[in-house]
Amino acid sequence: MAQPIECKAAIAWGPNKPLEVVTVTIDPPGPEEVRVKISATALCHTDAYTLGGQDPEGLFPCVLGHEAAGVVESVGPGVTSVAPGDHVIPCYQAFCAECKFCSSGKTNLCGSVRAWTGKGVMKSDSKPRISYQGQPIYHFMGTSTFAEYAVVHEVSVAKVNPSAPLDKICLLGCGVATGLGAVANTAKVETGATAAVFGVGTVGLAVIDGLRLAGASRIVAVDTNPGKFPNALKWGATECVDPKDHDKPIQQVIVDATDGGVDYSFDCTGNVNVMRAALECCHKGWGESVIIGVAASGQEISTRPFQLVTGRVWRGTAFGGYKSRVDVPALVERYLKGEFKVDEYITHHFKLEQINEAFDLLHGGDCLRAVIDM
Amino acid sequence: MAQPIECKAAIAWGPNKPLEVVTVTIDPPGPEEVRVKISATALCHTDAYTLGGQDPEGLFPCVLGHEAAGVVESVGPGVTSVAPGDHVIPCYQAFCAECKFCSSGKTNLCGSVRAWTGKGVMKSDSKPRISYQGQPIYHFMGTSTFAEYAVVHEVSVAKVNPSAPLDKICLLGCGVATGLGAVANTAKVETGATAAVFGVGTVGLAVIDGLRLAGASRIVAVDTNPGKFPNALKWGATECVDPKDHDKPIQQVIVDATDGGVDYSFDCTGNVNVMRAALECCHKGWGESVIIGVAASGQEISTRPFQLVTGRVWRGTAFGGYKSRVDVPALVERYLKGEFKVDEYITHHFKLEQINEAFDLLHGGDCLRAVIDM
Ligand SMILES: NC(=O)c1ccc[n+]([C@@H]2O[C@H](COP(=O)([O-])OP(=O)(O)OC[C@H]3O[C@@H](n4cnc5c(N)ncnc54)[C@H](O)[C@@H]3O)[C@@H](O)[C@H]2O)c1
Ligand SMILES: NC(=O)c1ccc[n+]([C@@H]2O[C@H](COP(=O)([O-])OP(=O)(O)OC[C@H]3O[C@@H](n4cnc5c(N)ncnc54)[C@H](O)[C@@H]3O)[C@@H](O)[C@H]2O)c1
Ligand SMILES: [Zn+2]
Ligand SMILES: [Zn+2]
Repeated sequence: MAQPIECKAAIAWGPNKPLEVVTVTIDPPGPEEVRVKISATALCHTDAYTLGGQDPEGLFPCVLGHEAAGVVESVGPGVTSVAPGDHVIPCYQAFCAECKFCSSGKTNLCGSVRAWTGKGVMKSDSKPRISYQGQPIYHFMGTSTFAEYAVVHEVSVAKVNPSAPLDKICLLGCGVATGLGAVANTAKVETGATAAVFGVGTVGLAVIDGLRLAGASRIVAVDTNPGKFPNALKWGATECVDPKDHDKPIQQVIVDATDGGVDYSFDCTGNVNVMRAALECCHKGWGESVIIGVAASGQEISTRPFQLVTGRVWRGTAFGGYKSRVDVPALVERYLKGEFKVDEYITHHFKLEQINEAFDLLHGGDCLRAVIDM
Repeated sequence: MAQPIECKAAIAWGPNKPLEVVTVTIDPPGPEEVRVKISATALCHTDAYTLGGQDPEGLFPCVLGHEAAGVVESVGPGVTSVAPGDHVIPCYQAFCAECKFCSSGKTNLCGSVRAWTGKGVMKSDSKPRISYQGQPIYHFMGTSTFAEYAVVHEVSVAKVNPSAPLDKICLLGCGVATGLGAVANTAKVETGATAAVFGVGTVGLAVIDGLRLAGASRIVAVDTNPGKFPNALKWGATECVDPKDHDKPIQQVIVDATDGGVDYSFDCTGNVNVMRAALECCHKGWGESVIIGVAASGQEISTRPFQLVTGRVWRGTAFGGYKSRVDVPALVERYLKGEFKVDEYITHHFKLEQINEAFDLLHGGDCLRAVIDM
């Protein structure tokens, strides 16, 4: 029978407060739960977003972190799909295969544990498995990987090929998978299509890589930071545009440059004005725009309905439409074959104690992904 | 060689001015043009919209009208697809089969004559074929059917089965086809799906009929005029909701009543707030909303991007996605087999001289379609 584990974790005590790395207690996994020894975890903008107090659902104190990989340490009663020693990627988007969402076949937004992960607790007893000096600490996104150990629901654990380096494939737990999937699953981009990618951070670059894989004929990268363009080109963009270099609105610049607009566009910024531009630079009749970025709380997107009546389509994606437990292992296999970039996003490495430095860096602009090696 | 024809037409002299029925001159058809003797024309809200000065592209003086049927009187040089005596439906949405749009296979928004019809003239010489006492009168939507004769581009003429009654199938030139196609072509509704239809005028009823044909399991009709509900139920709605009967926003009412939202929704009102509600009453993960209504100039739709990120899709449709010259003849055949309602929309008949009365009636709420018999 598994025992509580004392280990290090970074606690977020409240919005905009520095994280504190302390010794916490991680309880044994309950029924249909898995305790994972985290090997590596990256920082993603969603962590910064919640830490910045912008997430209306954000609960404190909590342990953030959701882009990680590790090894199963122990499993709770009823767990059949993984065993201690298995290499896994904890997935903030569960996949149970049975709920209304999973059985629809139409979406990856499994509803099996959402009601509990949204409240920072585990499903079996509506309590967290993390505590600090007896005080309960909330889970975050059902993952809480800024810790040496994490308890996650079995439906949120993807078992992956153990030959893959955990300090690299952790990126397939969020940003890189999201970008690749937005192209392959959400937009379903076809060979020869044209595309515009707004925002060339990790997610935007992964979209560019996905477009390259899809055989897009033209990939326009848009960023207000031209420092991002060398990577954009390296990843596969065919041209780069800085909106600040033009007097016309960026949607008009792209429409003019692409004979009426692109077939597909992707917002990877989280800025609602950019989301509008991304829709409006699409070709009349068939252009489809996919929102990936997460907007600040309360912000809204707008456009003239004529944009849609004349055939443009507005979509969004969460985790790139990948059904986590099923699709993430397949992504790891494809990574091992070298089909797409993963290692190349990792610009910085840190220890858990340096996590506040890593967050500062994330707000800079020179960092793609910072990985914390446990 | 065809000669100019003197005939009656209703001229719109300017925004919000009553139409004037006068004798105009309709020139012979130019190259790749067809002159049609109009047998019957219905009034649609788009005519009222332009007459009301709400269409920024509206040009005056013009002859309105775009939902009609008639018989080819003469054809210009180069016309091969129709001949005098053929029964036709003039289509405001052309289909040339050759332009970038048509050859994409992805859209019905043919671009072959749009640049000219948008300016109220014919393509071959950039001039109108209508004049009044020597003064040129603009065409409207490439159709201008509030007249005894109309010159239209060959690419805008659908040749139909001559056994179909022209005073009925004129409705397939716009509203009824739009509603049926929004379901079949734009949303591609599948058997068993649930749907909400906002606005139960002719377009909304045609959407309901389309949903019935698609085998929808649940059809929620929404209208602020409960006088519309008997027809909604007759056409196939399974339930009717008046937003005024509820304190909660209508999207919440529908989400609560349908276990999380509908699979498909349709705006048939033209009200941008309704368009938002229609999107937001869709089911997380897969719900798709189709905008059919035409909003007042300058109005915008808005929502939180989270609505799209969590899997809803926002679309629009023009002429229900039907490729006019190809698909309208097939709709007429299906009408002749009794597959869907057409006659049932016609609540009023008028003579051309009574056209202002017909417009007044359109603004009432008791009229579905008023047909003007020439
Ligand atoms: N939907 C999902 O499932 C999902 C998953 C992961 C991340 N995200 C979101 O995706 C977004 C991108 O993540 P990231 O890690 O790549 O972020 P990032 O900050 O590294 O990249 C954003 C890029 O956008 C650029 N940018 C900012 N404003 C711009 C503007 N007005 N025009 C053009 N470019 C502009 C920045 O210069 C930067 O290069 C974030 O909002 C993140 O929260 C969503
Ligand atoms: N996209 C296209 O190709 C296309 C083609 C034809 C018509 N249209 C547009 O479709 C719309 C509907 O056309 P129609 O002829 O059926 O019009 P209509 O006026 O007969 O019907 C509109 C209905 O909406 C209801 N309504 C108004 N406000 C409402 C609200 N807030 N909530 C719920 N219901 C409300 C009215 O009571 C009415 O029953 C118009 O905007 C028209 O311009 C678009
Ligand atoms: Zn599920
Ligand atoms: Zn065409």
